[in-house]
Amino acid sequence: MQTYASFSPPPRLLLGPGPSNVAPSVLKAMSLPLLGHLDPEFVKMMEEIKAMLRQVFITRNDLTFPISGTGSAGMEFCFVNLVEPGDEVVIGVNGVFGGRMADVAERCGAKVTRVEAPWGQIIEPQQIADALKNKRPKIVAIVHAETSTGALTPVEEISRLAHEAGALFLLDTVTSLGGCPVKIDEWQVDAVYSGTQKCLSCPPGLAPVSLNARALEVARKRKTKVQSWYLDVNLLSSYWGQERVYHHTAPISMNYALHEALRLVLAEGLEARWRRHEQNHLALKNGLAAAGLELASKNGHPLWSLNPVTVPGSVDEALVRKRLLGEFNIEIGAGLGPLKGKIWRIGLMGESSKKENVEKVIEALRTTLRN
Amino acid sequence: MQTYASFSPPPRLLLGPGPSNVAPSVLKAMSLPLLGHLDPEFVKMMEEIKAMLRQVFITRNDLTFPISGTGSAGMEFCFVNLVEPGDEVVIGVNGVFGGRMADVAERCGAKVTRVEAPWGQIIEPQQIADALKNKRPKIVAIVHAETSTGALTPVEEISRLAHEAGALFLLDTVTSLGGCPVKIDEWQVDAVYSGTQKCLSCPPGLAPVSLNARALEVARKRKTKVQSWYLDVNLLSSYWGQERVYHHTAPISMNYALHEALRLVLAEGLEARWRRHEQNHLALKNGLAAAGLELASKNGHPLWSLNPVTVPGSVDEALVRKRLLGEFNIEIGAGLGPLKGKIWRIGLMGESSKKENVEKVIEALRTTLRN
Repeated sequence: MQTYASFSPPPRLLLGPGPSNVAPSVLKAMSLPLLGHLDPEFVKMMEEIKAMLRQVFITRNDLTFPISGTGSAGMEFCFVNLVEPGDEVVIGVNGVFGGRMADVAERCGAKVTRVEAPWGQIIEPQQIADALKNKRPKIVAIVHAETSTGALTPVEEISRLAHEAGALFLLDTVTSLGGCPVKIDEWQVDAVYSGTQKCLSCPPGLAPVSLNARALEVARKRKTKVQSWYLDVNLLSSYWGQERVYHHTAPISMNYALHEALRLVLAEGLEARWRRHEQNHLALKNGLAAAGLELASKNGHPLWSLNPVTVPGSVDEALVRKRLLGEFNIEIGAGLGPLKGKIWRIGLMGESSKKENVEKVIEALRTTLRN
Repeated sequence: MQTYASFSPPPRLLLGPGPSNVAPSVLKAMSLPLLGHLDPEFVKMMEEIKAMLRQVFITRNDLTFPISGTGSAGMEFCFVNLVEPGDEVVIGVNGVFGGRMADVAERCGAKVTRVEAPWGQIIEPQQIADALKNKRPKIVAIVHAETSTGALTPVEEISRLAHEAGALFLLDTVTSLGGCPVKIDEWQVDAVYSGTQKCLSCPPGLAPVSLNARALEVARKRKTKVQSWYLDVNLLSSYWGQERVYHHTAPISMNYALHEALRLVLAEGLEARWRRHEQNHLALKNGLAAAGLELASKNGHPLWSLNPVTVPGSVDEALVRKRLLGEFNIEIGAGLGPLKGKIWRIGLMGESSKKENVEKVIEALRTTLRN
């Protein structure tokens, strides 16, 4: 048998679309000795995670907890529990993740109406209003922050329209939570999911979710069984609720990390954290301009945590990313879909959102583009 | 806002049904700085994980990798990809996990035939032969090691019967892999899943899976889309294969841990590791006998990694577990289903399978039962 050496990762500055860099105390939490998943001390920590998640989502929803999978599992959790075959769902599609929501919903048997906007643009309330004119869909779903383009869609008005049409309002906050205002109760979001590896700066592996009473009632009163056993909220709520009924073995160490990451978010304070993300976004924008580069988002709704940068005409964008990684240990992201080759994506999320990192990436880009 | 203190777990000796204790170098691997999920260094490590998993499963299956969820997500992966609505599936049910397989398969639209044995007993080949008399099911599925009872079902003969009937043979190796012989190619297992937190002694959060060419062809030639986007093998194989197409953000730190855990398994050697599990199982059996206690499994197929112990008649089993945890920092498991209150479950898995741990738990049980 071949033998292998222990893995030793190079020290990367993570300025891509996620994961972001992680605070030392979060890494330390990952290395704490394990507990059983029904241990009273672990259960106490689960309660603290739920309480902290409620503060970060700004919600009183009792059912607020992390799914044992990455952000896409959180997306699937929302759709498998709320959709039954034949249900109508209206989904805003202005990038990769809106398209993914439509795919996931269709796999649940939904009849999906896609409300499309060009990549980089937001979904306008009027588009949703038009789509709802002759419809009473069960769900209206929107991606708050499109990681693939850096567009932030304002959702309060869309939420109002969805409820007027009798629908649940479902929101993807994977790249917004912890990096800009996300107000679940105030915005009347019925179902929401996020990821841990973006602005919360916890390693990837969990997906915080929250359902309000209205969404939970829909899941409880289904005529058909939830097609996923792993993501069935009726089973999961018994484990994460008061009964503590064994469902699956929770990822112990990942929950340690999330506990510590949430603790840091709340210690900094949500408002201060949002402001920090805004300031470093502006510093990047100004620094890029001084270097002769510019942000690709121009519609007045830029995302602070994920910045699309226009690749200058004659530049080999893949080579620039390769050199940033090889010579500077800096990761930035590529464009996807129609934006492939046209933009870079510079993430300034959580621990990665620092003034010194903005300076480092601009300096590295300057140097690389010069020769 | 309320603030929270960092979490500090008590030092538990984990002798329950999993998670097991984890080697210091695995905990250390969890605390390594993050890489991006498409970073060439991470991709190289993914290749090593795949190669090591093949050695541990003793298979040449190209499609061998960890699902980004716990063991139950591995189970769901196998069924959602292989089952289409209306397919017939034969499942051996002799404990919690056989029952769970039937539930998961039905949620995929399968017509399930349950081949049942009393909890604690194995599934006999003759039972499967009888069930296959007038059937040509698509899949025959068996739990190799029933964690809920401690019974180890020999599967070579059942595999032969499944193939004679034209079915795929699907195997749950959650509690056997790394703790006793598991030979995927030799036994002609077409699809297999496991967990990380049992005999591999890695924290919970990933589910190693392997499909052979025959199973993969079934998944590729489906008429219907796989109902789970997150677990769709056709998408996952593009990320874990040569193309490296972005699917979801892999749990970076969990993969670091699995890499190190697999490295330790192979450094010890599979045969040596199996022998260690057997020896400590025998030591426990003898030690329990000397203490006036006995193993509940009596059918000649005891599982070395999970030992059911008969609770003496007048004893409050929950109180004993509570005292073991509170006074000795030792976790053991409770009985489930019809065995609730009747057995304890003592796990000796991976790092937890040590002579000194056997002595500790027997001494703790002796002391606790004395007063």
